[in-house]
Amino acid sequence: MTLPGMQDLTRPETYTLTGLSLASLAILVNAWRSDGEPLFASLAISGIAFAFTYALIRWTGEVFVKRGYKGRDMSKKNAVEIPEAMGLVCALVYLLAIVNFLPFAFKRDIVAVTSGAGRKDLLQEGQDIEMGRFLHRFPLEKLASYGFAYGTLASVTILGILDDSFDMRWRHKFFIPAFAALPMLALYFVDFGVTHVVVPAPLRQYVGELVDLGGFYYLYMAAISIFCPNCINILAGVNGIEVGQSLVIAFLIALNDMLYILPTVHQPHPAADSHLFSIYLLLPFIGVSLALLKHNWFPAQVFVGDTYCYFAGMVFAVVGILGHFSKTLLLLFIPQIFNFLYSAPQLFGVVPCPRHRLPRFNARTGLLEPSVATFTNEKPLRPLVGEALKLLHRVKLLRVQTDETGRVTETSNFTILNLWLVWRGPLREDRLAMEVLRMQTVVGLLGLWVRHSLALVLFTADNRF
Amino acid sequence: MTLPGMQDLTRPETYTLTGLSLASLAILVNAWRSDGEPLFASLAISGIAFAFTYALIRWTGEVFVKRGYKGRDMSKKNAVEIPEAMGLVCALVYLLAIVNFLPFAFKRDIVAVTSGAGRKDLLQEGQDIEMGRFLHRFPLEKLASYGFAYGTLASVTILGILDDSFDMRWRHKFFIPAFAALPMLALYFVDFGVTHVVVPAPLRQYVGELVDLGGFYYLYMAAISIFCPNCINILAGVNGIEVGQSLVIAFLIALNDMLYILPTVHQPHPAADSHLFSIYLLLPFIGVSLALLKHNWFPAQVFVGDTYCYFAGMVFAVVGILGHFSKTLLLLFIPQIFNFLYSAPQLFGVVPCPRHRLPRFNARTGLLEPSVATFTNEKPLRPLVGEALKLLHRVKLLRVQTDETGRVTETSNFTILNLWLVWRGPLREDRLAMEVLRMQTVVGLLGLWVRHSLALVLFTADNRF
Repeated sequence: MTLPGMQDLTRPETYTLTGLSLASLAILVNAWRSDGEPLFASLAISGIAFAFTYALIRWTGEVFVKRGYKGRDMSKKNAVEIPEAMGLVCALVYLLAIVNFLPFAFKRDIVAVTSGAGRKDLLQEGQDIEMGRFLHRFPLEKLASYGFAYGTLASVTILGILDDSFDMRWRHKFFIPAFAALPMLALYFVDFGVTHVVVPAPLRQYVGELVDLGGFYYLYMAAISIFCPNCINILAGVNGIEVGQSLVIAFLIALNDMLYILPTVHQPHPAADSHLFSIYLLLPFIGVSLALLKHNWFPAQVFVGDTYCYFAGMVFAVVGILGHFSKTLLLLFIPQIFNFLYSAPQLFGVVPCPRHRLPRFNARTGLLEPSVATFTNEKPLRPLVGEALKLLHRVKLLRVQTDETGRVTETSNFTILNLWLVWRGPLREDRLAMEVLRMQTVVGLLGLWVRHSLALVLFTADNRF
Repeated sequence: MTLPGMQDLTRPETYTLTGLSLASLAILVNAWRSDGEPLFASLAISGIAFAFTYALIRWTGEVFVKRGYKGRDMSKKNAVEIPEAMGLVCALVYLLAIVNFLPFAFKRDIVAVTSGAGRKDLLQEGQDIEMGRFLHRFPLEKLASYGFAYGTLASVTILGILDDSFDMRWRHKFFIPAFAALPMLALYFVDFGVTHVVVPAPLRQYVGELVDLGGFYYLYMAAISIFCPNCINILAGVNGIEVGQSLVIAFLIALNDMLYILPTVHQPHPAADSHLFSIYLLLPFIGVSLALLKHNWFPAQVFVGDTYCYFAGMVFAVVGILGHFSKTLLLLFIPQIFNFLYSAPQLFGVVPCPRHRLPRFNARTGLLEPSVATFTNEKPLRPLVGEALKLLHRVKLLRVQTDETGRVTETSNFTILNLWLVWRGPLREDRLAMEVLRMQTVVGLLGLWVRHSLALVLFTADNRF
């Protein structure tokens, strides 16, 4: 059996991937020999990760289908079965990539500080060297963060596989990422332990400059770890949207990271290490995700599975929390936060929720339309809820149908994708995905701009300067 | 459907497990409040891990069967289907346990060194405090080892699940553990980098006191990481033998660890931290394995799967390598090494190998007998190999049948379990397992004795004194 589009790699593909891998390898060898910038090594490893993921998705697609990891794409005229849960390939290649990057990240420290002899008692001298250290190298104390980041991402991969293997219930799934985040939270507890937050200037007269949140800070971090993976998981249902939104977020975080390590920034900047840490974790993520997007974009040849959503969300939670910029991170999740709040009435049962809420495929036009929830006489809406829906309809945040008595009989489902279709009319699947991703990019850039300008107003200083 | 013996927990079981958990919890709370020994916290967490694994195996057995993780026990009169790959439950609970132990292990360092404020610049003072540090607490620099150990074990769990889900070929499986070991090897490279080995005294006149193995040392460590999981995986096929042998090895390593941290040892001993690290990783392993053994011992209610074998072997590889006692570790694997070498002629195709080599169940007697490989006229043995087999038969290392012309027609299969049955005659399954485990214990204790006496002769000093 050959899946459509899932043949072996074509000859041009093979040449391109081989060429990319060889070029990346050359950069790697050179970076090692010349004791060069780890950033180039990270880029090169991400290139290899892209090529490897690309090829592995093709090679293993049939194996996934055979083992039962498969699904039908309901938004196509011919709903063929395609491999499901292929995000697992991304996660595995990613883990391999960040492990192989490790020696590059810490090379200066190994060579200069321990002289390759592992003499930890020489670290005293090392700390002197550190004062004048080059940019873009890690001090060894970042090593533990790196290890626990790896542990957290490996854990979320395990839980993703279990979720994709054993159909779990929604209310169980929701808390899964919190378990995976435990290594990170434990590390935070042991290694940083900082639970103070800086108070915005207007509030300082009441509570002081710093507030110690104590245990609540851990709850806050756990909430971020639960939120990031789940909100990617619920903004889904259209080819390419899970991977696409993750890539947009990754690029936006990387952009923000660059603001702290550009040559124009006065170094050593106190936050530079944290943002390097973030970049080093994001570049390979971008590599493996691009390879997946190529196969998941309309018309999809593979599905990504919950594994990918959990894994992607947890990458962001890890860099945000261990990089100490979780509030900035949330600014980049505005469309997802909106989608979550907007979905809440259906998720929590205030408005009846059909089994699937993805946009409806109109086989005649080939376009997607908003899917709807209908209310019959047997299961009517509560009158108050009906009035609220009609109000939302009036401000164009829903499309509601009423019968002759004015009672609500159906409403478009409460997801940002359906809302977009309400606003824009029927769209082809790839057009819908592309427009939503563009909106997400614009909102994210605005968020970053606000963060760096408002920071001056609220906190009297932007940590970038 | 209810599996035999896989009912819900009985009332006495529920009481015992609840009691154990509550008592462990009380110890934990007390250890935290009184700033007590992490060793007690580790024991308490291992108790909770035992109870949790025990209950989870019962609760999830049916789910595993439903999802296709099931197998038939061929050594029983009624070969019913029982859950397979339940070692996964062990691995998950184990990972959860070592993460939750983290704050206990490092509490002194957090409180005394960073004052809970995460001020890493205070570590200078911390290093002074360290000189007079209490036994049984870790310095924060062990944190990275802990993180990467977690990462390695999470990785081997992922690969174990993949192996149990996608039937992999033997020659692919063999190298799987090496991938999982990469985080550990990368850490070793970055953090220790010691590739010198101490030369035994008789050889010192030729090569000096220390030899730098360089890259070969990493190959050696990779070999250990491949060997430990695989050799547990091939000493298998009888109820309880995989978990049983792993528990014996774990107890023996823990015994060796105790030699370095007993109150009678002069402290601070340079190797004490490494052996504490080992104990902290082994105690929860013993906890989860005992719970699995209870359900995998004859007559087995569950199978353990490759996940368990990989996971167990990797726990040993991690403590041996990061604890710097990999040679001692190998002394505790003598029966497995023998089994591997003894199996080699069949594994590498010198002697034809049937699909299964587990002992043959004689339904009439209810006992296990050596299983055999037969050689027909179509597929005869090479004459030289036949002569070698007859020689092995004469020294009682095989049981060989010959026809009237003296040609070998069948031989017992090349595994230690079959050999034991050749020596001892037919045995009931649990008797065979118990006898082999006893033999393993005796050989292991001898190994430890030799290690600590011979060390004085070969290396002029035993590092224990």
